[in-house]
Amino acid sequence: MKVLFGSPGKKSGLILRIGQCVFAAFSIGFMASASGFSSTTAFCYLIASMGLQVLWSSGLVLLDIHALRSNRDLHTNIIVSLFVVGDWVTATLSLAAASSSAGVMLLFTRDTNICKADATLSCNMFQISIAFAFVSWFLLAISSYVMFWLVASI
Amino acid sequence: MKVLFGSPGKKSGLILRIGQCVFAAFSIGFMASASGFSSTTAFCYLIASMGLQVLWSSGLVLLDIHALRSNRDLHTNIIVSLFVVGDWVTATLSLAAASSSAGVMLLFTRDTNICKADATLSCNMFQISIAFAFVSWFLLAISSYVMFWLVASI
Repeated sequence: MKVLFGSPGKKSGLILRIGQCVFAAFSIGFMASASGFSSTTAFCYLIASMGLQVLWSSGLVLLDIHALRSNRDLHTNIIVSLFVVGDWVTATLSLAAASSSAGVMLLFTRDTNICKADATLSCNMFQISIAFAFVSWFLLAISSYVMFWLVASI
Repeated sequence: MKVLFGSPGKKSGLILRIGQCVFAAFSIGFMASASGFSSTTAFCYLIASMGLQVLWSSGLVLLDIHALRSNRDLHTNIIVSLFVVGDWVTATLSLAAASSSAGVMLLFTRDTNICKADATLSCNMFQISIAFAFVSWFLLAISSYVMFWLVASI
């Protein structure tokens, strides 16, 4: 099996995973601390999806650290196949969550004046949270492509 | 290069491409004929994204028909690499468009009573259009994975 940038058990892979975790956690933090998020299903779904991404990526961070410390090779068919399925499911859910929240945000700011009219909504916090979710999804997408490439090139 | 289900220049590939085209066209048709869609950016973006998908997939339908008629092999590196980039860009945009519209639709129907209050909005048409967009994205996702598998397994 080839060893690419972002492969499991490599430093580049660990950095990607830590990035996914951190940005997803920031996204949850900003959204959860924004007032009025719970009245919109898309924002609640964003928190759930980013929560799943934090769980998944933090698990892989621990596995990468373990592999780097003990110098073990994670490039086996079963491990990489498991990673690729998890990565793709999480990446699809994250993109869907970030996009649905962005769609609602556009409605709030451009199509209507809900953000201006309702001062209790923390629209800036929503926007920052959605931006972080997109960054987190982008890093996860890179990992997913690397994993898929590894599986396909066996 | 392997020949898989949905490969370019094969009948299964042609059927997938026709499916993508037809469902994307249905999605555009239902959305464009629904009253009040133009006031929501996410719905306009859905039409644009599905339009791009119709253009892309119909181009590949023509190429597949040509290859099937003339019995030409489309499994060359350059052609499949071009397909994989186009497929992934279109698939990502389609999922983002369908999800953002779905987020807005949830806001209209579950979080608020905009659909009940505003009789000029064709909410049922919006929902049918979004469902077709998701089906079209799903078929495109299958094609994208097959293409990526072909490129990676060269």
